[in-house]
Amino acid sequence: MWIAAARVEDLPAPGAYVLREIAGESVILTRDDTGAFRGYFNVCRHQGSRLCTEKAGRLDGRIQCPYHGWAYDLTGRLVDAPHMDDGPAFRMERVSLAAVAVDVWDGHVFVCLQPSPPPLRDQIGGLARRLEAWRMFELRRAYRAIYDVRANWKLIVRNHLDTLHIPFVHPALRRLAADRDLEGDPPAQTWLGGRLAFRPDVETLTHSGRLRRPALSGLADDQRRHVSMYAVLPNLLLSLHPDYVMTHLLWPKGPDRTEVWCEWHFHPREFDRPAFDPADAIDFWDDTNREDWQVCEQTQAGVASRAWAPGFYSPREELLVTFDRIVLERLDDA
Amino acid sequence: MWIAAARVEDLPAPGAYVLREIAGESVILTRDDTGAFRGYFNVCRHQGSRLCTEKAGRLDGRIQCPYHGWAYDLTGRLVDAPHMDDGPAFRMERVSLAAVAVDVWDGHVFVCLQPSPPPLRDQIGGLARRLEAWRMFELRRAYRAIYDVRANWKLIVRNHLDTLHIPFVHPALRRLAADRDLEGDPPAQTWLGGRLAFRPDVETLTHSGRLRRPALSGLADDQRRHVSMYAVLPNLLLSLHPDYVMTHLLWPKGPDRTEVWCEWHFHPREFDRPAFDPADAIDFWDDTNREDWQVCEQTQAGVASRAWAPGFYSPREELLVTFDRIVLERLDDA
Amino acid sequence: MWIAAARVEDLPAPGAYVLREIAGESVILTRDDTGAFRGYFNVCRHQGSRLCTEKAGRLDGRIQCPYHGWAYDLTGRLVDAPHMDDGPAFRMERVSLAAVAVDVWDGHVFVCLQPSPPPLRDQIGGLARRLEAWRMFELRRAYRAIYDVRANWKLIVRNHLDTLHIPFVHPALRRLAADRDLEGDPPAQTWLGGRLAFRPDVETLTHSGRLRRPALSGLADDQRRHVSMYAVLPNLLLSLHPDYVMTHLLWPKGPDRTEVWCEWHFHPREFDRPAFDPADAIDFWDDTNREDWQVCEQTQAGVASRAWAPGFYSPREELLVTFDRIVLERLDDA
Repeated sequence: MWIAAARVEDLPAPGAYVLREIAGESVILTRDDTGAFRGYFNVCRHQGSRLCTEKAGRLDGRIQCPYHGWAYDLTGRLVDAPHMDDGPAFRMERVSLAAVAVDVWDGHVFVCLQPSPPPLRDQIGGLARRLEAWRMFELRRAYRAIYDVRANWKLIVRNHLDTLHIPFVHPALRRLAADRDLEGDPPAQTWLGGRLAFRPDVETLTHSGRLRRPALSGLADDQRRHVSMYAVLPNLLLSLHPDYVMTHLLWPKGPDRTEVWCEWHFHPREFDRPAFDPADAIDFWDDTNREDWQVCEQTQAGVASRAWAPGFYSPREELLVTFDRIVLERLDDA
Repeated sequence: MWIAAARVEDLPAPGAYVLREIAGESVILTRDDTGAFRGYFNVCRHQGSRLCTEKAGRLDGRIQCPYHGWAYDLTGRLVDAPHMDDGPAFRMERVSLAAVAVDVWDGHVFVCLQPSPPPLRDQIGGLARRLEAWRMFELRRAYRAIYDVRANWKLIVRNHLDTLHIPFVHPALRRLAADRDLEGDPPAQTWLGGRLAFRPDVETLTHSGRLRRPALSGLADDQRRHVSMYAVLPNLLLSLHPDYVMTHLLWPKGPDRTEVWCEWHFHPREFDRPAFDPADAIDFWDDTNREDWQVCEQTQAGVASRAWAPGFYSPREELLVTFDRIVLERLDDA
Repeated sequence: MWIAAARVEDLPAPGAYVLREIAGESVILTRDDTGAFRGYFNVCRHQGSRLCTEKAGRLDGRIQCPYHGWAYDLTGRLVDAPHMDDGPAFRMERVSLAAVAVDVWDGHVFVCLQPSPPPLRDQIGGLARRLEAWRMFELRRAYRAIYDVRANWKLIVRNHLDTLHIPFVHPALRRLAADRDLEGDPPAQTWLGGRLAFRPDVETLTHSGRLRRPALSGLADDQRRHVSMYAVLPNLLLSLHPDYVMTHLLWPKGPDRTEVWCEWHFHPREFDRPAFDPADAIDFWDDTNREDWQVCEQTQAGVASRAWAPGFYSPREELLVTFDRIVLERLDDA
């Protein structure tokens, strides 16, 4: 599947790059001289050295290995290989960096390590239209929080789709959100979620519940009365509010450990206002995130027990049933 | 086998609980409303979350999951499952926590993770009568020291049964104890040990060797002239002195690592005396324990070598031969 | 193969010993009463305890186990075993420590864990004559730096034989050394390397490039115009300068981790001079070492990638081709 890995704003121009650790691999994400998005395994074709070591930066038209100076252009072609002789075993024009597929949806940069990936749009499917009103491609990140969670990434996805725990785990959120399930969407194979209604008089999810900035223009009335919560499988969680979008990127670090990047995105005009302060959204969700990680970690510990056997679902846990089925089908395929 | 896990004083009344980590499992030990001892895997039947997270505490008549509020009474029966519908796949009255067998011998609480455990009394056997004079069920813990020992638990058991190392390892103990083997007991399959005589004029094992409190009443003269050292397999070591009882609980944390809880137990009337000071017993054995862990760790390191081959036993190492045979037979069975 | 493990100066007299960790084994290196070099697995034949725990020291004619007092003479024979009875299962005169082969070349102490090792001189071969002018057996160590390098030992050997990276990685060294390959030696199966010419006016490798002490007497003119860099496989790297010898001992700690001991050796008369200061040599190579470890670590990270496939060699990388062939042949044999 395609993996969410960055935002377009991380790669604003040709030569800008970021490194990402994906499935144990270091991947260079960049844009070539035409502006096209490019991805490469961070491995020199000469002796295997890492090419880039800083997490982000600018490439000056080429990627040069720090060990022996082999250099590649931004389309991955080898353009300098000191002391190598052309011959039957080596022709410079035939040597390129190992490429990784990169594509973009609505401001989110995805990568795929498979050799011939299916189109990204097939994975996003009908979710694109559902969420287009937020114009996520326009938004800018105000903050990224990084959490080290001792739980499998799937428990974090499940928790995102689960509203039944809100009354027990989230004292602040339960004052703002109705005691309902996520609703409004038939299950798909690559994304799932729905909308959760605010309680009366609540305008957005912050500790005050009041809008301190204009709602994003173009949202329907209905979209301003709910938070829309989706999981774009496998690793992007979306929480779309009237006035901001929160994303979680999940980076598995082991079967029982996930690094979570939680990011808060606002309309670019907000950053120009002297009084702009995203803390109301960040603080609310930072507290709520930590409450979630705690129960995810306790669940990780419990499901590792010999005494654990799954099987009981409430009628209000349809989304979890769907997610578990998707996982089981993929395990069967593999 | 039954595993020693706590003392009755840790669970003084209905609802009191402690958590124990046993063979990688978190186990809740508690007492139900009738006072009966109960044990449960610390795993909710709903989504697998841990139920209790504090190491010890009080349950107010029920065990409630912090994630979605499922609740169990102290006999383990599910009594609340929010949003679940009764139906063929789920009947609340048929759902219970996974139970762990619990039983008590002479103040020591044992658990067994097997589904149909044999009686605890079969494991204790003739040791009960041998040690009844100490009335261990009456004693109270003055102190617990926790040691992280880089050695397999079996090396710690062997060291407890071995007196030949005393002259080389324990400068204080060798001034108090005769240079003899543990004696007086034919080997059993589930416990082994014996008595070690004090040197003349020695009254108990402390740095001074003098009794600073009355001997426990009811001990025979002979029991007041020896320390009785036993291993109740697999994980309880007993050292019974005229005026106090020391126990070691062994908690394997890996093939080469054991957490050891050493506890010192005194007669309850001692705690009421203003001048009560258990430090003479604690300090003596804390020093001696550390000497033991050092040689156990050096032995752990050595037996991992390709050059190590066991096989040489002194005639004075009969208890080690017996213990090694018990281990080998159990390995053959498994 | 024989493993370089110490210098003769570490074991100056009978009873002197050092411990070394070799392939997960603790080995005692010592000299017996005749001065002969001896090696033993650090494992008592009784219960397997480590015999020595200090990294270096003096044995007073015997090696005594700290646990139960078994004692061995410096030729490894058991000479005391308290409480053991001679009988068919145990005869003291037949019990010895498990021995490890030890031999010496030009001041370097080697060990071999194989039961019947080939002669060390076969492994050193023609290198002995090539390097005899430095009289390494006479030199004394001024300093040892210990580095924890996150790379396989083979990458460190390859880096030692590789001069192509100097212009890219070593700003100080490239001002001193010609841009050439190591030259002058046909490849062997157990050692490889060659000489690297200094640039004009350079006298030795230090930050100044000037000799601050006399060159070692007996060196040919040619040997004073080059640094001679060799790898004595598997774990000794030599860098012979006009006025000092630097050695690297490689201690693998895992497939992706190596502890490196870098040592600087000078003529003994230098230590008697009040103005003796080895810092010029140490500082220069400490900087250069750290530059090397960084690219070795980046290469370790890269070659672990699924995208890595070796195969491109420059005509100036003959030594790396040779080394890789030696490794592949040994892997085939195993």
